[in-house]
Amino acid sequence: SSNIRLAVIPGDGIGAEVVAEGLKVLHAVGVKAETTEYDLGAKRYHATGETLPDAVLEELRGYDAILLGAVGDPSVPPGVLERELLLRLRFELDHYVNLRPVKLFPGVATPLGEARPEDIDMIVVREGTEGPYAGAGGVLRRGTAQEIATQESLNTAFGVERVVRYAFEKAQARPRRKLTLVHKTNVLTFAGDLWARTVDRVSQEFPDVETDYCHMDAASMFFITQPQRFDVIVTDNLFGDILTDIGAAIAGGIGLAASGNVNPARTAPSMFEPVHGSAPDIAGQGKADPTATILSIAMLLDHIGSAEAAARVEQAVADDLVERQGAWTARATREIGDDIAARVAG
Amino acid sequence: SSNIRLAVIPGDGIGAEVVAEGLKVLHAVGVKAETTEYDLGAKRYHATGETLPDAVLEELRGYDAILLGAVGDPSVPPGVLERELLLRLRFELDHYVNLRPVKLFPGVATPLGEARPEDIDMIVVREGTEGPYAGAGGVLRRGTAQEIATQESLNTAFGVERVVRYAFEKAQARPRRKLTLVHKTNVLTFAGDLWARTVDRVSQEFPDVETDYCHMDAASMFFITQPQRFDVIVTDNLFGDILTDIGAAIAGGIGLAASGNVNPARTAPSMFEPVHGSAPDIAGQGKADPTATILSIAMLLDHIGSAEAAARVEQAVADDLVERQGAWTARATREIGDDIAARVAG
Ligand SMILES: CC(C)[C@H](C(=O)O)[C@@H](O)C(=O)O
Ligand SMILES: CC(C)[C@H](C(=O)O)[C@@H](O)C(=O)O
Repeated sequence: SSNIRLAVIPGDGIGAEVVAEGLKVLHAVGVKAETTEYDLGAKRYHATGETLPDAVLEELRGYDAILLGAVGDPSVPPGVLERELLLRLRFELDHYVNLRPVKLFPGVATPLGEARPEDIDMIVVREGTEGPYAGAGGVLRRGTAQEIATQESLNTAFGVERVVRYAFEKAQARPRRKLTLVHKTNVLTFAGDLWARTVDRVSQEFPDVETDYCHMDAASMFFITQPQRFDVIVTDNLFGDILTDIGAAIAGGIGLAASGNVNPARTAPSMFEPVHGSAPDIAGQGKADPTATILSIAMLLDHIGSAEAAARVEQAVADDLVERQGAWTARATREIGDDIAARVAG
Repeated sequence: SSNIRLAVIPGDGIGAEVVAEGLKVLHAVGVKAETTEYDLGAKRYHATGETLPDAVLEELRGYDAILLGAVGDPSVPPGVLERELLLRLRFELDHYVNLRPVKLFPGVATPLGEARPEDIDMIVVREGTEGPYAGAGGVLRRGTAQEIATQESLNTAFGVERVVRYAFEKAQARPRRKLTLVHKTNVLTFAGDLWARTVDRVSQEFPDVETDYCHMDAASMFFITQPQRFDVIVTDNLFGDILTDIGAAIAGGIGLAASGNVNPARTAPSMFEPVHGSAPDIAGQGKADPTATILSIAMLLDHIGSAEAAARVEQAVADDLVERQGAWTARATREIGDDIAARVAG
């Protein structure tokens, strides 16, 4: 396929290590990518105080896609890089779909004693640009006995409908064709009502998709006791954050969880990143598992229209995971990348 | 111990069946309880349109404690009984501590293949009277493309401090003396800041309690991958709702999960109830497991100052669960109650 322009944000900790393996596999699959690196993250923050300068943000808009490793370091005040860099990118680039597959690959150990790969195969479509992540809220009389702190979830018909429609399309393209809304409509009545009505209405355009509803608390339990209930899930920003970490746990751990911050309208580049953090404790030691990043590359390929290349990368990972069984710590970051790249290439 | 006055709300579905066994065990342990039944729930709602009449609420204030079975039926519009009965009781009776032990009893099957009873032994102290459950929020232009729906989390220094202090006291009384705050401070900055500062401040009164912090998404994962991290957890109303269902899942299922809606200031009676719902599909068949209700009775006993009786009930349940191994469906609701009552009595 044609040349793509890719912005790369390795970030902190193990970010650079895993990104290098992701790019290795991208090249191996034959996609010509012109990459430009951006030094955003803890180092830049300490050097200049900058998290995401406006000029950099504007430059990023010009790429076909963004690959991010991991951002964060204990030396930075908690929340700063998360909000000013990670979340700001999602909001500014209108990544209204936060796409997170939850899939147990054969050969991968799961903490669920009885779950088999066919039981855990779903996609969580998490809303990415509103809800409790809007940053709305306030505080009065901070630090006194009369303090009140509020936190507001903002939900719009516009924002909910576009992500719900996307989820229906995803569900329609899968064999089971089932979409489950996860919310807490019995308590969060205003937001829940908007979500439930939207799913109802849009479902009429997708008569071949079965729809279901599950409260967030019950869904969290079912991820553990009956994950086979789920095919595609659509949910809000905060519930999706929590559910996808439960998903990562049951599908073999955060080292395998990939994600896409997707702008399906393509008004700005989408961003792909492993769900895991920067893991400063193992940084620079070649111990990080680059698989989540490589699976994120598969999602990137799918997004830029290279479905065939995406499938090849995912298959190479699947094959690698089967062989890896029982040998989790035997290979260095680079070796895992080499092995998967070799499978992809040949 | 002395006579207690107990209000009993059997509720719907399996509620009456499990409550009967709970009361059986209460009597067997030698506590003299004068019980009065209240017919709140779906039947009353259909007959009179009432969920929780003010006069009944006022009467309930006069008891030493309340035992609730389960409330809810598909024939009632979703959310009505939850909000107008269950949540209203929690708010009106100022149940600011929602106490939910997460404990894997020996002999109980857990979906976590490798977890042992010593790995899962914690108490979740969930705030019960504010946060996202306040019911605050609104909607504009409902049903149009311009709709906006908000949902507001209200957090006060008063409300957070009292539950945090309670959690520290609980932690101090346990062997590990560890308290973990679970929140999402990096995103929900206003509320998160109040919670984190409160834990910091109150911790100075409890120098022998180790404190820890965990983001809600990571905590959800750690419940599955490293439950032994946790001893006592303190968290907000919504995170606690989700975490305790994850807790129920890992500790053998919702059939064993007990809870107390506690007003530690004793300005109104506390209410004890199994975490499970009314399970209309198995109602009236003697299939329901009354164990969660019986464990809720143990919590009730503890609350009214009968710690010795509480310990006896919990021990009887533990012994029963060890023997029950591999024979989960062999006994009827009544038989389980009989067996546990017999152990307690003699
Ligand atoms: C780092 C944090 C802001 C982020 C989130 O809450 O979305 C992370 O948990 C994730 O899931 O990508
Ligand atoms: C029924 C519902 C309102 C309730 C809650 O959300 O608190 C339930 O899930 C619980 O955990 O007791």
